[in-house]
Amino acid sequence: METTKFQIPEWAFTFHGHKCPFMPIGYRMGTLALRKLGVERCKDHEMHVFSEMGVGHPQGCMQDGIMSATGATFGKGMIDKLYYGKVAATFWYPGVKGAVRIFLRNEFQDKLAPHEFFDYRKKGIEPSQIPENVCDDIINMVLTATEEELFIITEIPDFIYKPVKGSFAKAKCEICGEYVFERYLRVIDGKKVCISCAGHEPDEKVSYAPTYKKS
Amino acid sequence: METTKFQIPEWAFTFHGHKCPFMPIGYRMGTLALRKLGVERCKDHEMHVFSEMGVGHPQGCMQDGIMSATGATFGKGMIDKLYYGKVAATFWYPGVKGAVRIFLRNEFQDKLAPHEFFDYRKKGIEPSQIPENVCDDIINMVLTATEEELFIITEIPDFIYKPVKGSFAKAKCEICGEYVFERYLRVIDGKKVCISCAGHEPDEKVSYAPTYKKS
Repeated sequence: METTKFQIPEWAFTFHGHKCPFMPIGYRMGTLALRKLGVERCKDHEMHVFSEMGVGHPQGCMQDGIMSATGATFGKGMIDKLYYGKVAATFWYPGVKGAVRIFLRNEFQDKLAPHEFFDYRKKGIEPSQIPENVCDDIINMVLTATEEELFIITEIPDFIYKPVKGSFAKAKCEICGEYVFERYLRVIDGKKVCISCAGHEPDEKVSYAPTYKKS
Repeated sequence: METTKFQIPEWAFTFHGHKCPFMPIGYRMGTLALRKLGVERCKDHEMHVFSEMGVGHPQGCMQDGIMSATGATFGKGMIDKLYYGKVAATFWYPGVKGAVRIFLRNEFQDKLAPHEFFDYRKKGIEPSQIPENVCDDIINMVLTATEEELFIITEIPDFIYKPVKGSFAKAKCEICGEYVFERYLRVIDGKKVCISCAGHEPDEKVSYAPTYKKS
């Protein structure tokens, strides 16, 4: 019996920069999400992705795969981190009722873990420096696995998310003169200034988390 | 005299999903940063990018161009937002002294602003729905501009940044059973649990901002 092998476009590897198993896992996750929601790859600002990854752990590469498969990119503001430290993401598409959460099964994480690829990684060797056959072998494990082996899918029927309202309005900082979008203008001594010129600490960032309908 | 036209690989447009002027601006910004720092496109976890963009404003597409040109991707954890609302980014490469900040000149922002492309955008029409010749025309303005017309470059000789220390350690949440990277395990009633099962609010995210050496 021939094994079915999932196909990933070469440009997604070019974008990502190296061959690792987690970009392909994210690509498969994103592809599955599109199918579950019954939508096409996004050209503009459609699908929102809430990645459960954070900082200071491996496997974030998954997110480059998700962006490549879905078109919900960081630049377009369509993917945010929830900082839960899990290999999971929730996909929401306006107009489609509910959302879909996809988690990479513990069992598949355990299946990958003993692979030689991670011996290199744990020694601090970067993916581009790992022998190509080792990379290809672990990527093959991802590409030949079934969706059932890979993922747990949870439908979230009552998912609510209100995207931040955008504005084109901008003005020049009255100190440095650089253009600033209005949302990020601050006021110091009566002058409209940028956050850098205001000397504010970089802890004022805001994030728009999804809201689940209370039952 | 023939105008020199900057070249952007087609896959970068495929990744991004539509034709707009800001992905190409970011691509040129990233290309310039690589040259200024004297480094190649990143395969793994080398260059860090601190984008000054935030939420709720246009032109974030720039960041998809930066990622595509530099290989400093969101998935690999190499690009973060500073939420200043400016069309600017700082590029830092470990081992190279200092960093480089690149800002899109007010004058070039003013030059683009009256273009028909933005008439469509301000009516809420998404880039993929704007006539192709309109998109091509504004992209051409970006590709044929000189770097001097586009950018203000600031060298930051005393730039210091300490990347977050990573760890492969993970454990199963003692409530839901899903794997969680240790950094994101919390404790509830003596059990090691994930943030979702802990019922914590999603406001505990941390961010590692660059530190400038005090003179």
